Amino acid sequence: MNIQPIGIIHTPFMASDGTPIQPSVAKGAEGTVQVFDDYAKGLMDIEGFDRIWLLFWFDRSSEAKLTVIPYKDDRKHGLFATRAPCRPNPIGLSSVRLLGVEGTILHVAGVDMLDGTPLLDIKPYVPSFDVYDTVRCGWLDTASDTTKADSRFEKLPHRNTGNDT
Amino acid sequence: MNIQPIGIIHTPFMASDGTPIQPSVAKGAEGTVQVFDDYAKGLMDIEGFDRIWLLFWFDRSSEAKLTVIPYKDDRKHGLFATRAPCRPNPIGLSSVRLLGVEGTILHVAGVDMLDGTPLLDIKPYVPSFDVYDTVRCGWLDTASDTTKADSRFEKLPHRNTGNDT
Repeated sequence: MNIQPIGIIHTPFMASDGTPIQPSVAKGAEGTVQVFDDYAKGLMDIEGFDRIWLLFWFDRSSEAKLTVIPYKDDRKHGLFATRAPCRPNPIGLSSVRLLGVEGTILHVAGVDMLDGTPLLDIKPYVPSFDVYDTVRCGWLDTASDTTKADSRFEKLPHRNTGNDT
Repeated sequence: MNIQPIGIIHTPFMASDGTPIQPSVAKGAEGTVQVFDDYAKGLMDIEGFDRIWLLFWFDRSSEAKLTVIPYKDDRKHGLFATRAPCRPNPIGLSSVRLLGVEGTILHVAGVDMLDGTPLLDIKPYVPSFDVYDTVRCGWLDTASDTTKADSRFEKLPHRNTGNDT
């Protein structure tokens, strides 16, 4: 199974430290999604959607860890019960607001990824597919209100905070 | 960029024809997610969540097409304005209900993928991250009420329906 970037995401964020942890707390931070010319035809009709999902590659996260202390808690949780970037398949998922389309450039708001992040896929955000009432959100039901990342999941070994592999 | 399965998704659906096109129209169809033992520790605390995102590999879809006639319309649209499986990086995204956890087996409802689909990632579904009010849903605002797939995106060449590459 091989994947390859179909574009690059440009954002104001150069390092994890201080980057919003999710689009919902990104306070409208704006960015651009530059889709490679080879895929231009695939963007037809995208401008009709208010929001899109971006699937992207966590290219600067540390190696996979199966338990992590996530940003919003001080206890360890299983990786799959978190949105931490240090995943076996480091694929990120964020819903961003689509502000406009200029050729192969998408202007978006609510970015929470690092500048230069490789784009893997774009899907329309469709409430009838994607919105569900849920009651229980596990440990996140009593999580902290942290909104910014720090460097704990970065690639550099000296920033390892002792999360298990 | 290499990805590898972290598990296998088992569902009642052996072929695209008749498979629900999204969890929201799967009428609670049940399945199991078998996570490989190597990743067992990553499941800690997952049982607290009502819903999870499954990211998976469309292993039986046809090669990438940049324009498609999706199930819910009879006109062509850009691939990235659809959820069709024939994508440059054929990664599927579905939110399923988590019914229970037995070791490395997750019992889920609302499955819309084929039996034996390779699992790439599990993320918690978190309304404060994932739920947005959106107004415009492009061509889907006037789409048909189709709920079942057919074989148009299957790998077999004789089932090609003339969608552009």
